[in-house]
Amino acid sequence: MKFTIQRDQFVQGVQHVSKAISSRTTIPILTGIKIEASSEGVTLTGSDSDISIEAFIPKEDGDTELVDVEKEGAIVLQARFFGDIIKKLPESHVEVTVSDQFVTQLKSGSSVFNLNGLNPEEYPRLPEIEEENVFKLPKDLLKSIIRQTGFAVSTVETRPILTGVHWSIEDNQLTCTSTDSHRLAMRHAKVEANTSDLSFTNVVIPGKSLSELNKILDDKEEWIEIIVTDNQILFKAANLLFFSRLLDGNYPATKNMIPTHSKTSVKLNAKKLQDAIERALLLSREGKNNVVNVKTIEDNQIEITSVTPEVGKVTEDVESLEYTGEELRISFNGKNVIDALKVIDSTEIVINFTGAMSPFVMKPVESDHMLHLFSPVRTY
Amino acid sequence: MKFTIQRDQFVQGVQHVSKAISSRTTIPILTGIKIEASSEGVTLTGSDSDISIEAFIPKEDGDTELVDVEKEGAIVLQARFFGDIIKKLPESHVEVTVSDQFVTQLKSGSSVFNLNGLNPEEYPRLPEIEEENVFKLPKDLLKSIIRQTGFAVSTVETRPILTGVHWSIEDNQLTCTSTDSHRLAMRHAKVEANTSDLSFTNVVIPGKSLSELNKILDDKEEWIEIIVTDNQILFKAANLLFFSRLLDGNYPATKNMIPTHSKTSVKLNAKKLQDAIERALLLSREGKNNVVNVKTIEDNQIEITSVTPEVGKVTEDVESLEYTGEELRISFNGKNVIDALKVIDSTEIVINFTGAMSPFVMKPVESDHMLHLFSPVRTY
Repeated sequence: MKFTIQRDQFVQGVQHVSKAISSRTTIPILTGIKIEASSEGVTLTGSDSDISIEAFIPKEDGDTELVDVEKEGAIVLQARFFGDIIKKLPESHVEVTVSDQFVTQLKSGSSVFNLNGLNPEEYPRLPEIEEENVFKLPKDLLKSIIRQTGFAVSTVETRPILTGVHWSIEDNQLTCTSTDSHRLAMRHAKVEANTSDLSFTNVVIPGKSLSELNKILDDKEEWIEIIVTDNQILFKAANLLFFSRLLDGNYPATKNMIPTHSKTSVKLNAKKLQDAIERALLLSREGKNNVVNVKTIEDNQIEITSVTPEVGKVTEDVESLEYTGEELRISFNGKNVIDALKVIDSTEIVINFTGAMSPFVMKPVESDHMLHLFSPVRTY
Repeated sequence: MKFTIQRDQFVQGVQHVSKAISSRTTIPILTGIKIEASSEGVTLTGSDSDISIEAFIPKEDGDTELVDVEKEGAIVLQARFFGDIIKKLPESHVEVTVSDQFVTQLKSGSSVFNLNGLNPEEYPRLPEIEEENVFKLPKDLLKSIIRQTGFAVSTVETRPILTGVHWSIEDNQLTCTSTDSHRLAMRHAKVEANTSDLSFTNVVIPGKSLSELNKILDDKEEWIEIIVTDNQILFKAANLLFFSRLLDGNYPATKNMIPTHSKTSVKLNAKKLQDAIERALLLSREGKNNVVNVKTIEDNQIEITSVTPEVGKVTEDVESLEYTGEELRISFNGKNVIDALKVIDSTEIVINFTGAMSPFVMKPVESDHMLHLFSPVRTY
């Protein structure tokens, strides 16, 4: 194999596929990046067997030559050194030459690296996915969905299914749900599908896969094609394939957990609420339970308090923009509410309470595509 | 005690004195910040008994009122929460009120914190320093000196004296030296003194103290007064006092370690040398010894190589701008040379070698106020 490649493109491709590579893998070949040169261009692959990423650098981009392939072939090179090496090479182009015994030379200006490669024949094949049920989403919407649901997955492995985000589609409406059993995030979005009767449920994508995908997707406008099979999901962007395995098991039914009525409803400025809870949490960090207490007081105000006996007490008053229903006293995990406020992308929010010991719902005022549910905390 | 203070000034003062506070102290009162309000303004103090910092916020700054003291007094508050709390307060001013039992209320807008304070009488007094031998330096020069010598101190405690930077003054010339016994950094600077016969030697300032001082000093033009006593050094800036204890023991004589002749002298572009060594180190990271090999080759070039058998080999050619003397092959710790190149602030540097197994000297071409010395590494 021998080719010359534009360094910046090479760096970006390697950074993308490196996201899938874990240094803790037990399969030695997966610590490497597979590099394949064909007449079309150069394909890079990285995988930890849960996530696989393929980045393609075409021969040309418009009038610009990106790759000049002199001899086709393939090699696997250690990922750990590779990204740093090409990033630091002195010239704008890199010449890659594989000789006997998989020894690979990288040459750029007066800098020459000879790296020990691995046999590309030993690299596992990526899953072949039939493009039967395809739907697509604008990239920026996909990124929002991931950001607005991914944070609420469980991080403990006691119920592995909860470490994923549940996706379902019905009537071209995608519903994404995540919960760690103390809080729940739900996001709806319209999708475009190649068939009008596309419908599925119980597709659970590992939270980690989605967060890695989000890191790779840039801000260029583009549609992302998504293909779901029994045990895999594939996200297709320009010159990029992102495969993730799906989680096994049945995701809990969440629909009936969401209260449809409310006893107390409060409309608040999202930023002011977030600031007040953040200050209240400054003291409860010590106790590590992040509990804040909320009660309604006169003049449409709500009072947020937090007490840590050794340290002190904080009291915050927040004015409500609208207030209907009964008086209320409730305690909850303030950090969970802040996590949701950070992704809610709305100036004003509504919280619907159904009693001191019942879950409550927070929604943006401007739109109906998102919902956050929280369990209260018993403090006595 | 009761006063109202401008929040931003308060935050900055607290950030400064917090640099001296360690959460690992065995003296409970030292986990706190001492706050003292007088008719002049508010004084903040933090200390870990090695370093003590005092920040003063005056009543007024020009026409702007910074502090309004209603009742004088003092309190000690836990540093861990305090900085975060005042940074996040909602309004531009904070009202601080101490009531019985050292309970302290911070009030800003609709946010109220009640914090458990500690008895200020228990806070240790700062050392009283007689201003006999005073000299001064422009702040930016002091910051350069710290940056250009602090990195070379020893980080291991086997020879505690080497964890400090040695300062001496003779004929109004300050000489700062640091070494970890494998490399040495030396910096000269002219100072202004209040007495023409100011002279001292064997003042060894902990590297950690200097790095904390450097973090606090901003970029405003100002002279820093420095006062040295038997076991303390005091740096005085506007509204800021920084005390550090000095290290006990005799600093090794370093003057005779520096070779005055050379067998091979090479002038190089500093940036190109740094880039080449950084690339060479990408592979030797694995071995953790950071060894690179340098040899002179034809056409005034020097060749830098590094080999890690399991990973591969890198070869870098760097053109010398001037070359005199014998041919050379030498191996050294590349990271040490990079550390020095990062602070040398010169486009071109000269390296004077005195043989493959002898220490070598690197200096900036433009000036004579700095010198770096390195031991070679035996590789066979």
